[in-house]
Amino acid sequence: MQELEAYHHEIEKRLLQIDLRGVPVELYEPIKYILSLGGKRVRPQLTMLACQMFGKPGFLAIDAGLAIELFHNFTLVHDDIMDKAPFRRGKIAVHKKWDERQALLSGDTLFVIAYQQLSKNSQNLSELLAVFSKTAQEVCEGQQMDMDFETRASVTIEEYIEMIRLKTAVLLAGALEMGAIIGGANPTDRKFIYRFGENIGIAFQLQDDLLDVYADEGFGKQCGGDIIANKKTFLQITAKTLANDVQSEQLAALVKEQNQATKVNETVAIFNALDIRKHTENQIQKHFDMAFQDLAKINVSEEAKSTLKAVANKLMKRQK
Amino acid sequence: MQELEAYHHEIEKRLLQIDLRGVPVELYEPIKYILSLGGKRVRPQLTMLACQMFGKPGFLAIDAGLAIELFHNFTLVHDDIMDKAPFRRGKIAVHKKWDERQALLSGDTLFVIAYQQLSKNSQNLSELLAVFSKTAQEVCEGQQMDMDFETRASVTIEEYIEMIRLKTAVLLAGALEMGAIIGGANPTDRKFIYRFGENIGIAFQLQDDLLDVYADEGFGKQCGGDIIANKKTFLQITAKTLANDVQSEQLAALVKEQNQATKVNETVAIFNALDIRKHTENQIQKHFDMAFQDLAKINVSEEAKSTLKAVANKLMKRQK
Repeated sequence: MQELEAYHHEIEKRLLQIDLRGVPVELYEPIKYILSLGGKRVRPQLTMLACQMFGKPGFLAIDAGLAIELFHNFTLVHDDIMDKAPFRRGKIAVHKKWDERQALLSGDTLFVIAYQQLSKNSQNLSELLAVFSKTAQEVCEGQQMDMDFETRASVTIEEYIEMIRLKTAVLLAGALEMGAIIGGANPTDRKFIYRFGENIGIAFQLQDDLLDVYADEGFGKQCGGDIIANKKTFLQITAKTLANDVQSEQLAALVKEQNQATKVNETVAIFNALDIRKHTENQIQKHFDMAFQDLAKINVSEEAKSTLKAVANKLMKRQK
Repeated sequence: MQELEAYHHEIEKRLLQIDLRGVPVELYEPIKYILSLGGKRVRPQLTMLACQMFGKPGFLAIDAGLAIELFHNFTLVHDDIMDKAPFRRGKIAVHKKWDERQALLSGDTLFVIAYQQLSKNSQNLSELLAVFSKTAQEVCEGQQMDMDFETRASVTIEEYIEMIRLKTAVLLAGALEMGAIIGGANPTDRKFIYRFGENIGIAFQLQDDLLDVYADEGFGKQCGGDIIANKKTFLQITAKTLANDVQSEQLAALVKEQNQATKVNETVAIFNALDIRKHTENQIQKHFDMAFQDLAKINVSEEAKSTLKAVANKLMKRQK
């Protein structure tokens, strides 16, 4: 895992080197701000690790990885407008620190900058662009599904998984596939690493849903935020599917409950009665297993796979 | 000019062939809508004409031209959100027909589709991307300047010209340069055709400002809309620069005038007293002449330049 430190260090360094000195400065300040809020930089690390796994230096893939990271930050800026989210990474969101139209326009600019970063790849440019644009389009489709779900009476588990696949998982998958392209992977291995990323991504998002309710105490993550916001998470949808008539009525009534503590406690009581934690953990494990089955099929040595495996395991073991 | 008809026809046909059958349909309906509102499709025609001028078939440049047209429509969708404009091309704007967040997300998706269209160019991809992304970034900078001007007490003529150069002119310039790249132009000729487009674009926008106030009657264009909206146009800025103390006070008072007819009539009276029409026409002519000086330097036959010249002349003679 030693290379990960080096990758992370270089990613942060290169993000700071992106030329954001353009005018008008009003356009670029929000971009500097969102990039300064940090984050784990998982996506560009995955791009570099995938490249390394196929036998080329991970640093060859840094521009592609940075493009993904810039795109990811662009989606955060625009999603926060659409979701009316006041905070991002514990700080005030761009559209609140400035205003919505500033967040819109600076976001658009950041999207262009992401493509400029990607275009620094003189090799494989056409293939990288194809993966990048397809991924970007699918992330938009996922956000659309997420918005559509808000006003729908019910959402199936399959629809929910498809939404998180598009909104979250394809970006991890695309990040890995782009690294594999630069690493010289063949089309079959590219498909396997893409699917590995998709399933890791789905598992990751499901775990996010789970941690909102069942995070171990002491990690500072607000418990029950999704419940309070009436979000249709995997837990909520599964509970609705498994609930008996009485529990269904209780869940429906809890949507309108004004007392937040009561709302969270009584919803969690129903989740517990229906064993929702176990159901969710099983679903996470299922996608995690599928991911590792695809990783096993990739035609490189076990040693070459070891760092990527370790990173995936670490992502899944997080408690916040 | 016969080829122009063929180009226009093919552009419309190809726009209809762009695959917008994706799901969720909610995401793609606004994109179909904005593209269905028409427009002159000047930008892709310029791309194709520039390619043709350098001796290659104009149709070779259609994907690059379509990418520019798609990008242009994306900017219309997002600009209308930012400017709170209720109408576009005489129809209801996307953010009013749907809502702001739908216009935001469908706009983002259209931006991706523009890049996908551009990526269809297997030749010259890297150079085309560089021009396209630089242009897109500058258009954002122009929109930022335009927004910043709204709240500023005063704007200089130079600042105003720079704003319209970025917001409007570079897209014509970029459209032409991309056509020139595909047509095989050398770097010197690329620079000349870019500057030709820049100056034609500035002249075009100045003429838009002029026509808002001095359009010949009978063309159905609302007269004085910019005056009513207190827009800082070339006419307004020039008037403020040339006004004596009395006229300055009158102009300042007219900003708050509630009666629209009074506001327009009295403002136009001051414009007339200051000969603003002539000043604006001189500025238009200046940029038009600079454009043609650069066109003259391009190392192809006069015959090859004839259609582009004719199109530029037609653009400048429009009365609405």
